[in-house]
Amino acid sequence: MKKIAVFPGSFDPFTKGHEDIVNRFLPLFDEVIIAIGVNQQKKYMFSLESRKKHIETLFGNVDSVRVDTFNQLTVDYCKANKAQYLIRGIRNAVDSDYEQAIAQMNAKLADVETVFLMCNPEFAPISSSIVREIKKNNGDISKFVTNAEHLIIS
Amino acid sequence: MKKIAVFPGSFDPFTKGHEDIVNRFLPLFDEVIIAIGVNQQKKYMFSLESRKKHIETLFGNVDSVRVDTFNQLTVDYCKANKAQYLIRGIRNAVDSDYEQAIAQMNAKLADVETVFLMCNPEFAPISSSIVREIKKNNGDISKFVTNAEHLIIS
Amino acid sequence: MKKIAVFPGSFDPFTKGHEDIVNRFLPLFDEVIIAIGVNQQKKYMFSLESRKKHIETLFGNVDSVRVDTFNQLTVDYCKANKAQYLIRGIRNAVDSDYEQAIAQMNAKLADVETVFLMCNPEFAPISSSIVREIKKNNGDISKFVTNAEHLIIS
Amino acid sequence: MKKIAVFPGSFDPFTKGHEDIVNRFLPLFDEVIIAIGVNQQKKYMFSLESRKKHIETLFGNVDSVRVDTFNQLTVDYCKANKAQYLIRGIRNAVDSDYEQAIAQMNAKLADVETVFLMCNPEFAPISSSIVREIKKNNGDISKFVTNAEHLIIS
Amino acid sequence: MKKIAVFPGSFDPFTKGHEDIVNRFLPLFDEVIIAIGVNQQKKYMFSLESRKKHIETLFGNVDSVRVDTFNQLTVDYCKANKAQYLIRGIRNAVDSDYEQAIAQMNAKLADVETVFLMCNPEFAPISSSIVREIKKNNGDISKFVTNAEHLIIS
Amino acid sequence: MKKIAVFPGSFDPFTKGHEDIVNRFLPLFDEVIIAIGVNQQKKYMFSLESRKKHIETLFGNVDSVRVDTFNQLTVDYCKANKAQYLIRGIRNAVDSDYEQAIAQMNAKLADVETVFLMCNPEFAPISSSIVREIKKNNGDISKFVTNAEHLIIS
Repeated sequence: MKKIAVFPGSFDPFTKGHEDIVNRFLPLFDEVIIAIGVNQQKKYMFSLESRKKHIETLFGNVDSVRVDTFNQLTVDYCKANKAQYLIRGIRNAVDSDYEQAIAQMNAKLADVETVFLMCNPEFAPISSSIVREIKKNNGDISKFVTNAEHLIIS
Repeated sequence: MKKIAVFPGSFDPFTKGHEDIVNRFLPLFDEVIIAIGVNQQKKYMFSLESRKKHIETLFGNVDSVRVDTFNQLTVDYCKANKAQYLIRGIRNAVDSDYEQAIAQMNAKLADVETVFLMCNPEFAPISSSIVREIKKNNGDISKFVTNAEHLIIS
Repeated sequence: MKKIAVFPGSFDPFTKGHEDIVNRFLPLFDEVIIAIGVNQQKKYMFSLESRKKHIETLFGNVDSVRVDTFNQLTVDYCKANKAQYLIRGIRNAVDSDYEQAIAQMNAKLADVETVFLMCNPEFAPISSSIVREIKKNNGDISKFVTNAEHLIIS
Repeated sequence: MKKIAVFPGSFDPFTKGHEDIVNRFLPLFDEVIIAIGVNQQKKYMFSLESRKKHIETLFGNVDSVRVDTFNQLTVDYCKANKAQYLIRGIRNAVDSDYEQAIAQMNAKLADVETVFLMCNPEFAPISSSIVREIKKNNGDISKFVTNAEHLIIS
Repeated sequence: MKKIAVFPGSFDPFTKGHEDIVNRFLPLFDEVIIAIGVNQQKKYMFSLESRKKHIETLFGNVDSVRVDTFNQLTVDYCKANKAQYLIRGIRNAVDSDYEQAIAQMNAKLADVETVFLMCNPEFAPISSSIVREIKKNNGDISKFVTNAEHLIIS
Repeated sequence: MKKIAVFPGSFDPFTKGHEDIVNRFLPLFDEVIIAIGVNQQKKYMFSLESRKKHIETLFGNVDSVRVDTFNQLTVDYCKANKAQYLIRGIRNAVDSDYEQAIAQMNAKLADVETVFLMCNPEFAPISSSIVREIKKNNGDISKFVTNAEHLIIS
């Protein structure tokens, strides 16, 4: 059976931290689906289309990576895509408590296992929300996001 | 003197975790008031009326439990109801840091003591916000909320 | 039924933080047993006898407090003393994670509920191990331990 | 070279906790700039003008303190003011994880060092958001904010 | 290339929590080596031989599990066994901070990736040290350790 | 008045993390005393003499750094050396809770302020205890300790 993992997130934007997590998980799975969650009630900084393009460009030459969008329950999206795994990175203790609750709830909802890697120290401080804050203040986000120029403010 | 405890929250919705906390605190107090805080500026998923009904039905046959709503300072509500105690559950370390600040501030505002129980492991991952997220995506919340069918989306 | 709580610890020494926790829990229980755990393999700084005397003197005029020693499983000691509750204070997030595991394990072992108070901010930094470190270096521990002169180094 | 530190925040309101942090940092720096961050998209409870006046009054007789507002990237504001340091207080573990990420990101963006003090236990539970909650419910915030009467709801 | 994972620990004793982690990781790897670390300077409660037998019995009919002992650097043991992965469970925030440092250090020492699962809530409170404490006090550890009768006190 | 800071620790060994903390604190103080605490009851991996030499060599050309040993209360050592400050690094949330208690206790014992920097992400996972573990297992610690060859096992 093919081992398929979903990496869910809003990726607003997809940072070097996210990129590193995907790259490190690649050898463990036959397919990794980077799935951009779309929540109608939430406002995003970067357009969905540009976020998707941005990630697709980053993994353009990696056959086992697919980029997608979804607007349903994460575990339902996994089932629809025959993915047995969710993958996530852990940055610190607060992150861990948050991710633990989500992972345990998802396991109660469906037969989906969430697998974690600890962020590389270099990328641990990077979060999409801090990156947005920098962008909003005209700061340079290229240290935290590869090919940041592909992202378009929505 | 009657020992009266207030269990404050928005209970949007009241989960099995909340239910377990109340049940475990019951033997310690003469009366437990489940007090739904109403904040005009906040939007809730479930109607206040249905949240109140939902909780009342759960504890319909427990004489020492009363369900109420309030829109004042929590410690003022306690004083108005002659409650000497607030009760809360702790799910994890992040929860603990948050609850600690609130409890210590309340103790500075009034002579009200906040008493805690650690959540039952089974219920520790459940939070109202994750439950709302599941509901929003048409997931089944009945594993996390008893008689969830009584709740009406507002 | 009398509500009986056990406050277990090695109390090496019993600090102002412990004292505050007991005093704040008193109105909630008919009896509070301060139970000094004795572990043959562990070395203590202060003699067991002086630790017991020290605590007894602190609560000499409080009828509902009893000081005892025990060298069995905490929940077995509770059962032997018909105590339905354990009581503990929480100083910070690390403390909370530690106490949570112990409380949940005790609940699995026996029908004993652990009830918590957040430490008073003033006493939150005090721990017996830091107090011992101060004592070992001839520092003044009287700011952290009431009647510290009653304690005898073993 | 003059040692200049910026204490950034929204200070909505500036609490006794903030006040204590500034006072304790004063001997370490030649100048401390209390810099109120202005974010057009965010709503504040107290008017910017009254928040500025409030802080200015508190440090009116301290020559080395200056109060300012800014609406750019924090590290850009530091550079514009030749400040080599940012200063912040840490209240608890959750705060620490949050502040750590910000500090490490700022260090990647510019040559600015963030220096921390642990909050005085007495002030550790105080946060601007809890204070606002108290104010919103007509509670007395004077225990948590010096000269609170100078603040005007916006 | 075969995907080989090492699950390192002292397993004094191997709890239901450890058992659950191994079982959940099995589908992800071709081989899982449960590797009991032996530290001459450390005292263990249960004999090494009985700990090894205990684990072997638990996974006797699982072809992809091997039980071994080692007394070298964990990453050296991985290299010697051509294992590209270490696997661990996370119980809470404190655990996460501890595991994060170890995982990041191991990644700096060698090309070994540590993969994590969040403990099942039911098993999250179980730690070998609490289980030993229970055993020391003649408590029943069978709720926390499968086939605990196979373990021999050393 | 000269600003003098003490960096206390057992430094068994002094890692690149410690080195980075000292270097980043240098511009803030007129003198930094790296003070190796000596506890007769504790066993150290590296000889006191070699630990002192090791650190002295690292800062041999930095006039404002002095290396010393002490076996008294940290705050007493500060007073004896007219140091108004203690300096420490914070690696993660667990570290923060630990350091917070020590800093607040020291502030109660004497007029000594503890100032913190967040560890550089690169060095955050490094702890002396993990480094000792690596050394004990004949691993290469040179990635974590500058001039590690100067350290002699005691």
